[in-house]
Amino acid sequence: MIKKAIYPGTFDPVTLGHLDIVKRGIELFPELIVGIAENPKKKPLFTIEERKEMFVESLKEVGLNGKVKVKTFNSLLVEFAKKEGAVAILRGIRIVSDMDHEFTMASLNRKLFPEIETVFLMPSDEYAYLSSSAVREIAFYGGDVSQFVTKFVEKKLKEKFLNR
Amino acid sequence: MIKKAIYPGTFDPVTLGHLDIVKRGIELFPELIVGIAENPKKKPLFTIEERKEMFVESLKEVGLNGKVKVKTFNSLLVEFAKKEGAVAILRGIRIVSDMDHEFTMASLNRKLFPEIETVFLMPSDEYAYLSSSAVREIAFYGGDVSQFVTKFVEKKLKEKFLNR
Amino acid sequence: MIKKAIYPGTFDPVTLGHLDIVKRGIELFPELIVGIAENPKKKPLFTIEERKEMFVESLKEVGLNGKVKVKTFNSLLVEFAKKEGAVAILRGIRIVSDMDHEFTMASLNRKLFPEIETVFLMPSDEYAYLSSSAVREIAFYGGDVSQFVTKFVEKKLKEKFLNR
Amino acid sequence: MIKKAIYPGTFDPVTLGHLDIVKRGIELFPELIVGIAENPKKKPLFTIEERKEMFVESLKEVGLNGKVKVKTFNSLLVEFAKKEGAVAILRGIRIVSDMDHEFTMASLNRKLFPEIETVFLMPSDEYAYLSSSAVREIAFYGGDVSQFVTKFVEKKLKEKFLNR
Amino acid sequence: MIKKAIYPGTFDPVTLGHLDIVKRGIELFPELIVGIAENPKKKPLFTIEERKEMFVESLKEVGLNGKVKVKTFNSLLVEFAKKEGAVAILRGIRIVSDMDHEFTMASLNRKLFPEIETVFLMPSDEYAYLSSSAVREIAFYGGDVSQFVTKFVEKKLKEKFLNR
Amino acid sequence: MIKKAIYPGTFDPVTLGHLDIVKRGIELFPELIVGIAENPKKKPLFTIEERKEMFVESLKEVGLNGKVKVKTFNSLLVEFAKKEGAVAILRGIRIVSDMDHEFTMASLNRKLFPEIETVFLMPSDEYAYLSSSAVREIAFYGGDVSQFVTKFVEKKLKEKFLNR
Repeated sequence: MIKKAIYPGTFDPVTLGHLDIVKRGIELFPELIVGIAENPKKKPLFTIEERKEMFVESLKEVGLNGKVKVKTFNSLLVEFAKKEGAVAILRGIRIVSDMDHEFTMASLNRKLFPEIETVFLMPSDEYAYLSSSAVREIAFYGGDVSQFVTKFVEKKLKEKFLNR
Repeated sequence: MIKKAIYPGTFDPVTLGHLDIVKRGIELFPELIVGIAENPKKKPLFTIEERKEMFVESLKEVGLNGKVKVKTFNSLLVEFAKKEGAVAILRGIRIVSDMDHEFTMASLNRKLFPEIETVFLMPSDEYAYLSSSAVREIAFYGGDVSQFVTKFVEKKLKEKFLNR
Repeated sequence: MIKKAIYPGTFDPVTLGHLDIVKRGIELFPELIVGIAENPKKKPLFTIEERKEMFVESLKEVGLNGKVKVKTFNSLLVEFAKKEGAVAILRGIRIVSDMDHEFTMASLNRKLFPEIETVFLMPSDEYAYLSSSAVREIAFYGGDVSQFVTKFVEKKLKEKFLNR
Repeated sequence: MIKKAIYPGTFDPVTLGHLDIVKRGIELFPELIVGIAENPKKKPLFTIEERKEMFVESLKEVGLNGKVKVKTFNSLLVEFAKKEGAVAILRGIRIVSDMDHEFTMASLNRKLFPEIETVFLMPSDEYAYLSSSAVREIAFYGGDVSQFVTKFVEKKLKEKFLNR
Repeated sequence: MIKKAIYPGTFDPVTLGHLDIVKRGIELFPELIVGIAENPKKKPLFTIEERKEMFVESLKEVGLNGKVKVKTFNSLLVEFAKKEGAVAILRGIRIVSDMDHEFTMASLNRKLFPEIETVFLMPSDEYAYLSSSAVREIAFYGGDVSQFVTKFVEKKLKEKFLNR
Repeated sequence: MIKKAIYPGTFDPVTLGHLDIVKRGIELFPELIVGIAENPKKKPLFTIEERKEMFVESLKEVGLNGKVKVKTFNSLLVEFAKKEGAVAILRGIRIVSDMDHEFTMASLNRKLFPEIETVFLMPSDEYAYLSSSAVREIAFYGGDVSQFVTKFVEKKLKEKFLNR
């Protein structure tokens, strides 16, 4: 049986750190699906369609085109994972104080769907402290985000904050 | 003199983890008062009356009926504690990264009212990662919360999210 | 060349803990500039003008008048620091779980402007757990904040919450 | 039934922080027993007899004489607690990164003896960062420990390090 | 190509928590090798042969016989992993304050051997706080370790501490 | 008055991370003194003379020759700082779980010598997880430490572990 893994997130927008985790996940799992959570309560900056487009275009830009599927979902993560037949949820971690939140989610997900395992990977040192919210903040003030995101995402951020 | 303790919280809604702490608190203090904070700024899902009803009904369901009083308050916690004549504030803790917040609150409360002691207890392993917000999230997406709350709370959550 | 440092924050309002860091910073740097971030997204309780006035008046009250400049900014912190010619950003830290956030900010700021160094200082034990948000919370409920802020800030908080 | 609590530790030597916790414990529990663990594997600086004498003399010095019993034990803590008929183990906590260790011990102790509750209290701000090992280190180099321990303990430390 | 993973440790002795991770690892990786580090500097209680025997016998006891290989090594972990042709190092984590140490090791191992990925899994809630050193401590004082280890390990611990 | 700072440590051996902090400290303080603690209780791998030699030679290798003084001390750090007339103690930090220990030391040092300030700086991302003990461990097993230390230190480590 093919071991399928889900890499879930809001990806608002996808960063080079997320793409680094995708690359590592591909080495470990025969099949990897990026799951973009709609997450309306978080009031994302980008629509779910924009976030999907940015992820797909960024995969092309870093040469990972065709190696993962990018899907969206608007349900509990475990429901999405069940539907996809995944055995693992992939999470990129580096910030120690996030771990309690990660353990909480993993523990609850295991209670809701015991067949699924949460697997934690560590991004590259250079992306250790990178987050979508930091990228949005820098772009909001017109700062240079080219070290943190792909060219496509950089362009989209510029359009978004053009008229501020 | 009877040593009275307060167990404060928003309880939006009460979980089996909260009830576990109540049970442990009863073993330690001759008198225990559950203090439900109105907390309008947090925009709770349930009204203060609903939260009180859910706590009272849940106590019955787990066989702790009549062992604690359930009150509501809309003031600083230390003012409520002073009014009730409490010597201790009870807090259930398990998540290490919450501790800084807990120490902050305890330290401020001690500065505002030095006669009161904050007492930290640990819930059961099975409730270590349980929180009201996780329960609300799972219920929002129609997930099964029966491992986390009483039947009465489960019913109330279903009613609340019926028309989403 | 004079080593200039920036002490940035929202200061909504300034507390005795912030003033403690200012006092320590003055001992280390020949020139220290308090930088109040406008931060409209945080929806501060006080306007940027009120926050500046409170900082200026509080410096007088604790005898630090004329030792630091108080400025406001509405840009990326590193842009403000660059414009001012600062070599260091001063941060007061004490809460361990805040450190990940502090490291993230410092790491991003270093990527955006490698010439600047983030310098962390520790406030006095008595201010270890003090924060502007705790002060606002206590004042909101009419509690006594005189241990935490200057007389001027105490007065301003009273005015703000008079009609609640 | 009288609620009895145990305050365990190596107390090598007792500090003003430990005595602060004793004072707070007395307010909460009708009966409090200090339990000094022999802990030979830790190779304590002071013998178990010296540690007991220092605790007893220090209680006198801070006016807590007769309010607690001081006992020694060389067994699992839960065995000692069982023998004494205690319902609670008292722990002073302040350092967040110690909490994982504390939760581990409390969780194991609960598995070994479910009837006992671990109760965490917070020492005064001024003793937040005080530890026996820091006191030993300072005394080793002939530093002034009078802010951290009683006069009796200070004298004992001086004797111990006289001939270094 | 078969994805091979290494699960390294001192296993002094193996606990039910370690076996829980093995079981989870088998679900994720087509081939899993337990790597017992000789670690003479840690002065283990059990010899490397005893630790291997305990792991092998414990696997039989929990029905995982034949599903993993158990090997020993006395070199840098990455050298062992390289020799075995592994793509992943498996680590069980639950204690947040251990994460810094885990990230350090993973970061160094990645610098020494970039082809290898460290994969973190979470043990069951009931083993969250279990460690070999706690088991040794309890056994040393003659406490009951049957909730924490297999029968075989329990017997070995008893023999080891018989003559204390 | 010239603001003098001390950068203390055991430096067993000095790493590129330590040298990175020295470089940053030089930018902030007109005078910087490296203080190597004798620390016999830690049983260092290298003698105090070897550690001093390695620091001095490493400074030359990275082009910081003549910019800092390297001294040794065998007393309380604050005594050494007092004697040198320093106003600041410099510490490189990056690992969040070390912060409690750092705050403890800084708080105690402030109590023993209130005129001195502890100043925390962040090393480069690439040295975030680097430590002397990791370097010793890798060298012990004959691993390649050239990414972590200067050539001089690498040579000294090889000599030290030649006959293992």
